[in-house]
Amino acid sequence: MTTQNHAETVTAAVLVIGDEILSGRTKDKNIGYIADHLTAIGIQLAEVRIVPDIEDEIVTAVNLLRARYTYVFTTGGIGPTHDDITADCIAKAFGATIDVDPRALALMQPYYEKRGLELTPARLRMARLPEGSELVANSVSIAPGFMMGNVVVMAGVPNIMQVMLDAVTPRLKTGRKMLSETIELFRPEGEIADMFGAHQKDFPDVSMGSYPFVKDQKTFGTNLVLRSTDPDKLAAATTGLRAKLQATGKL
Amino acid sequence: MTTQNHAETVTAAVLVIGDEILSGRTKDKNIGYIADHLTAIGIQLAEVRIVPDIEDEIVTAVNLLRARYTYVFTTGGIGPTHDDITADCIAKAFGATIDVDPRALALMQPYYEKRGLELTPARLRMARLPEGSELVANSVSIAPGFMMGNVVVMAGVPNIMQVMLDAVTPRLKTGRKMLSETIELFRPEGEIADMFGAHQKDFPDVSMGSYPFVKDQKTFGTNLVLRSTDPDKLAAATTGLRAKLQATGKL
Repeated sequence: MTTQNHAETVTAAVLVIGDEILSGRTKDKNIGYIADHLTAIGIQLAEVRIVPDIEDEIVTAVNLLRARYTYVFTTGGIGPTHDDITADCIAKAFGATIDVDPRALALMQPYYEKRGLELTPARLRMARLPEGSELVANSVSIAPGFMMGNVVVMAGVPNIMQVMLDAVTPRLKTGRKMLSETIELFRPEGEIADMFGAHQKDFPDVSMGSYPFVKDQKTFGTNLVLRSTDPDKLAAATTGLRAKLQATGKL
Repeated sequence: MTTQNHAETVTAAVLVIGDEILSGRTKDKNIGYIADHLTAIGIQLAEVRIVPDIEDEIVTAVNLLRARYTYVFTTGGIGPTHDDITADCIAKAFGATIDVDPRALALMQPYYEKRGLELTPARLRMARLPEGSELVANSVSIAPGFMMGNVVVMAGVPNIMQVMLDAVTPRLKTGRKMLSETIELFRPEGEIADMFGAHQKDFPDVSMGSYPFVKDQKTFGTNLVLRSTDPDKLAAATTGLRAKLQATGKL
């Protein structure tokens, strides 16, 4: 047994908030980025939801997901306009009050002053944070994200979301890293499916998936992906699978 | 009142099934495509969920979403390998039996014979459909999707998903189309947010959203998007907003 096995499994959900994603007008670029990031640091993304800009939907989803997973990461709805209702929804979900936060204001005031921009009521909205939340720095455009309990609230604009995710990462508890090995086969998955299924039964602690691909619109193949938090079991399952594929001339 | 206003509102959810999306290994390309397609044909996408390849998670999500929305569109998990469990989960969700479907087999047998490919037990898995389901044609690689009640079950590979979505579209009930107008502003949203919020209050039937953008990593701006199923109200709100923006020198 390696030390890694003693570590806890840490889970997360992503909650994307935005009518513009559901209408198709904007294509989400955050889910895949957050998924990669969480996998890399040892947090297992277990569920994603995309909900519209409707208070009840957001509050319900936040409360359900924060009870179920170690962390919830939200994107979207923290800008200055009337359709940005995420901070209020988080406050409501936690039964907390919300008001202009002096820490957020202290960051935003000199930033806007320096640029000769007025701190309009709309911009002030971005300084409103639920009581008890911690700021998450925004090195792109100052107005911060925040962390309330186990919920990390980030902007929807990808480059801002990314710096917020980096900023909050040192504060997150991480667990066993999900490790993976990929075997790329230039065979249709139907050819190896029976053997692959039997191999999965031999290694119940290693999760195995088969993903067909098309390259350059003409080369077809299958990626066999093996995943485990245990490096020894992963290596054994991968070596065993390679041997079986080579023995049957598939690899 | 136009005829359009008499039409029903038709809603949908998308359920993406796949560990590989949650791990970040594969980036989803289906959600945005389906969102665009549904908006174009007059179905409102109201929610998206991504769940892992775990039976309980899939069954629970299917039953919850199919009760809540007019349609549910699933992607992923209908291939030949052991990790493809969507058809079984749909059967379980509906309390239906599942077996090799003669209609699916009749499509697949000649296709594989012609190509000199064996109809292995794994490939036969792709002909297993819940009792009471209707086939959804797959013009790319024959193995069909299906529609069970109000649930449309499609492949995860984007080009196959797309032909299945086209194949099922004529069978779908569609409703009022969500129409939209976009005003592109080369101003930060903070500058127009207060006026924009007031304008939203003047037109409660038109949903208004503000989406900041960055072009070529240097030009910042804001897209103001107005959406309604009523073309007259949409036109009035858009014209009114343009006038206000012009009067204040923002446009």
